[in-house]
Amino acid sequence: MSNEKKSFVLKGAVCYNKSLKEFDARKDAYVVCVDGVSKGVFDELPEEYKGLPLIDCSGKLIVPGLNDIHVHAPQYAFRGIAMDLELLDWLNTYTFPEESKYAGLDYAGEAYDYFTDDLKKSATTRAVVFGTLHVPATKLLMDKLEATGLKTYVGKVNMDRNNPDYLTDGDCEKSLAATREWLDLVEGNYENTLPIITPRFTPSCTDELMEGLGKIAAEHHLNVQSHLSENLSEIDWVKGLCPWSSCYGQTYERFGLLGGDTKTIMAHCNYSTDEEVELMRKHGTYIAHCPQSNAYLSSGIAPIRHYLDLDMNVGLATDVAGGANLSMFRAVSDAVAVSKLRWRCVDQELAPLTIQEAFYLATLGGGSFFGKVGSLAEGYDFDALVLDDSGIRSPRELTVEQRLERFCYMQAEGGKIAHKFVAGSQLF
Amino acid sequence: MSNEKKSFVLKGAVCYNKSLKEFDARKDAYVVCVDGVSKGVFDELPEEYKGLPLIDCSGKLIVPGLNDIHVHAPQYAFRGIAMDLELLDWLNTYTFPEESKYAGLDYAGEAYDYFTDDLKKSATTRAVVFGTLHVPATKLLMDKLEATGLKTYVGKVNMDRNNPDYLTDGDCEKSLAATREWLDLVEGNYENTLPIITPRFTPSCTDELMEGLGKIAAEHHLNVQSHLSENLSEIDWVKGLCPWSSCYGQTYERFGLLGGDTKTIMAHCNYSTDEEVELMRKHGTYIAHCPQSNAYLSSGIAPIRHYLDLDMNVGLATDVAGGANLSMFRAVSDAVAVSKLRWRCVDQELAPLTIQEAFYLATLGGGSFFGKVGSLAEGYDFDALVLDDSGIRSPRELTVEQRLERFCYMQAEGGKIAHKFVAGSQLF
Repeated sequence: MSNEKKSFVLKGAVCYNKSLKEFDARKDAYVVCVDGVSKGVFDELPEEYKGLPLIDCSGKLIVPGLNDIHVHAPQYAFRGIAMDLELLDWLNTYTFPEESKYAGLDYAGEAYDYFTDDLKKSATTRAVVFGTLHVPATKLLMDKLEATGLKTYVGKVNMDRNNPDYLTDGDCEKSLAATREWLDLVEGNYENTLPIITPRFTPSCTDELMEGLGKIAAEHHLNVQSHLSENLSEIDWVKGLCPWSSCYGQTYERFGLLGGDTKTIMAHCNYSTDEEVELMRKHGTYIAHCPQSNAYLSSGIAPIRHYLDLDMNVGLATDVAGGANLSMFRAVSDAVAVSKLRWRCVDQELAPLTIQEAFYLATLGGGSFFGKVGSLAEGYDFDALVLDDSGIRSPRELTVEQRLERFCYMQAEGGKIAHKFVAGSQLF
Repeated sequence: MSNEKKSFVLKGAVCYNKSLKEFDARKDAYVVCVDGVSKGVFDELPEEYKGLPLIDCSGKLIVPGLNDIHVHAPQYAFRGIAMDLELLDWLNTYTFPEESKYAGLDYAGEAYDYFTDDLKKSATTRAVVFGTLHVPATKLLMDKLEATGLKTYVGKVNMDRNNPDYLTDGDCEKSLAATREWLDLVEGNYENTLPIITPRFTPSCTDELMEGLGKIAAEHHLNVQSHLSENLSEIDWVKGLCPWSSCYGQTYERFGLLGGDTKTIMAHCNYSTDEEVELMRKHGTYIAHCPQSNAYLSSGIAPIRHYLDLDMNVGLATDVAGGANLSMFRAVSDAVAVSKLRWRCVDQELAPLTIQEAFYLATLGGGSFFGKVGSLAEGYDFDALVLDDSGIRSPRELTVEQRLERFCYMQAEGGKIAHKFVAGSQLF
């Protein structure tokens, strides 16, 4: 693997979103990368690019890389077990004890090796990642992610209330001091890995801590990630903890943590009120839709169609270990599935998502959090996957769109990721 | 591969349901197969079995084979595409045109090769399968399934109304004659493959056809499979087509097609009324729960907890190509996921399914349709999978129960099926 930005041409079947509603699919085309940036997709290779090295992927599918905008690295070790509780009990019973193990670098090292190895092999090209509250382990996670060649944001988690004794930053001042210490260690030290301010969620963070984190984010010009309106009990709890607030979103917004000069990702937003939605629109907040997690933790189904109708920023995420699967193709298919169940069981005013809309969420939708990312169109960072779908056999002639659709639904049953590029660097 | 019934011992971690609520998991145990039947699970190998060949699967998981009690073989060719419509439009737009291709044995041969190859490699040890209405293609499907060593029921489909011209049995008499012709060809000709009477569903079958099929089932002592109360529009349509009926289930029950002397599987049962439930209880009808299909076709979520509380016969199924995935482990995890969404979004009176309850559905629940099938306990047919979960890495020490849970959620991300046995015959 080399992190060197390269210039080359890929040849094969190509499909990608130009926007939520515009999908370009070509059976036999060229995608040109110059210095890590796409020069666009062409049916005939333009003369000026004929001198570049050609990687012939004929018979395979070339698609943009997928962006997982909410994933908990320390929870990877217990994904797929302990799925019998709702959010708040799940945190106390399973998640907090697991995260406390990352006080030790031996455990953290082994666990983060598995996470970063598997993430590198996955469909994900960029990710926005929760660590734990531990500074050394979060630094170690960033070192390991940097080595993969993936582009990520990583957060040291902050928590100063309602925490178990075995998992706490101490008081507000200590939590803020640890955050500054962590930023001193990591800021400017990586090419691919950036810090992001990470209050766990309002039940774990006092107003004082939120205020301090808002100031740090502003001073350092850092993006922010957290959780919002995931679960009904959580929302009730926040009402009690912040009686001054008129919606959960306000408990971040008051302290400058909902976006504005920098960007904020809020995971879930399953039950956002009209007021909360207006706050998010005002600040350009990104919603991380986590369909599998919201099913497995019995949280509900987010009204993604509503958010898209309002032109809000929405991306897709695995939320490991609320979700068990690291595959963003699985997340695409899950987004379609739960949108249909929501339409059927909850609200027939909101049409289900199409596969191409769900693919948009995984590419352009979350991609813009990183810059010009998530498409193969000219000017976008060259993040791409080359997909081998020859193992998903059918006697039918399939269109390029259908081949991508099958890959999203059936990656697990014969689909392989043959090559992966991030900003023009080939990871494999 | 040999179909010879063998006697041998497997050694490894073992887990299986003894019943819906009883789960046996052992870290290091022996499972004994004598003449294709389990002699039980032992912590120490009894003296009398020490002379049998020992297959050492230490480090791997030994579980019962999984039973897919509702899957459409001809729809395998278009799984994972054309997921944008509800049931009735989906049938007319995508499914009927696809099934019409099975008039030709070239297409059928290629398509059924893919289906049977992949089914053999999958977690499924037994299946209840829809063919098409074509006699030669359905015979070909049975030939190919027989060669896999899997145990299956296969149905030639009957349809004599509301069909397109290009996919019809002709009138009732012709449909019944074709069924008798097919039975002449296949009955008694296979060791592993049995015919099953298969009216497509009430909208496709006149009362006369249902009556004739009921008589054939009784004369030949054959089991029956069909669809019931999958989709709200379908249920309305049946009301109009059979004004004499007071529930959809009655349109089968009146003609002896809901079970009794033989067994019947009804797929879905998402919206069964109390009256319909009582009819199914009276006749011991099997419900094939198809969680993925019911999501992708926007049908809804079946109240499986309710059926289990009533001690009804419930099994699990992929319903390819309403469902896209052939993996029954995926079906287990989907059953858990949709039960949680149903609890959250529809009815908090019905508790979500646990993973062990969902595993019961896939093993014992559907297994009893085939006889004494679905457990590793003494006296059950020896259907078993040996699972290699070493690719699903974790720094944690995991219990045997947790390892199975992870395999259900994450087969796609590192899990492999190392060996497969059906009634004591090793398929691989």
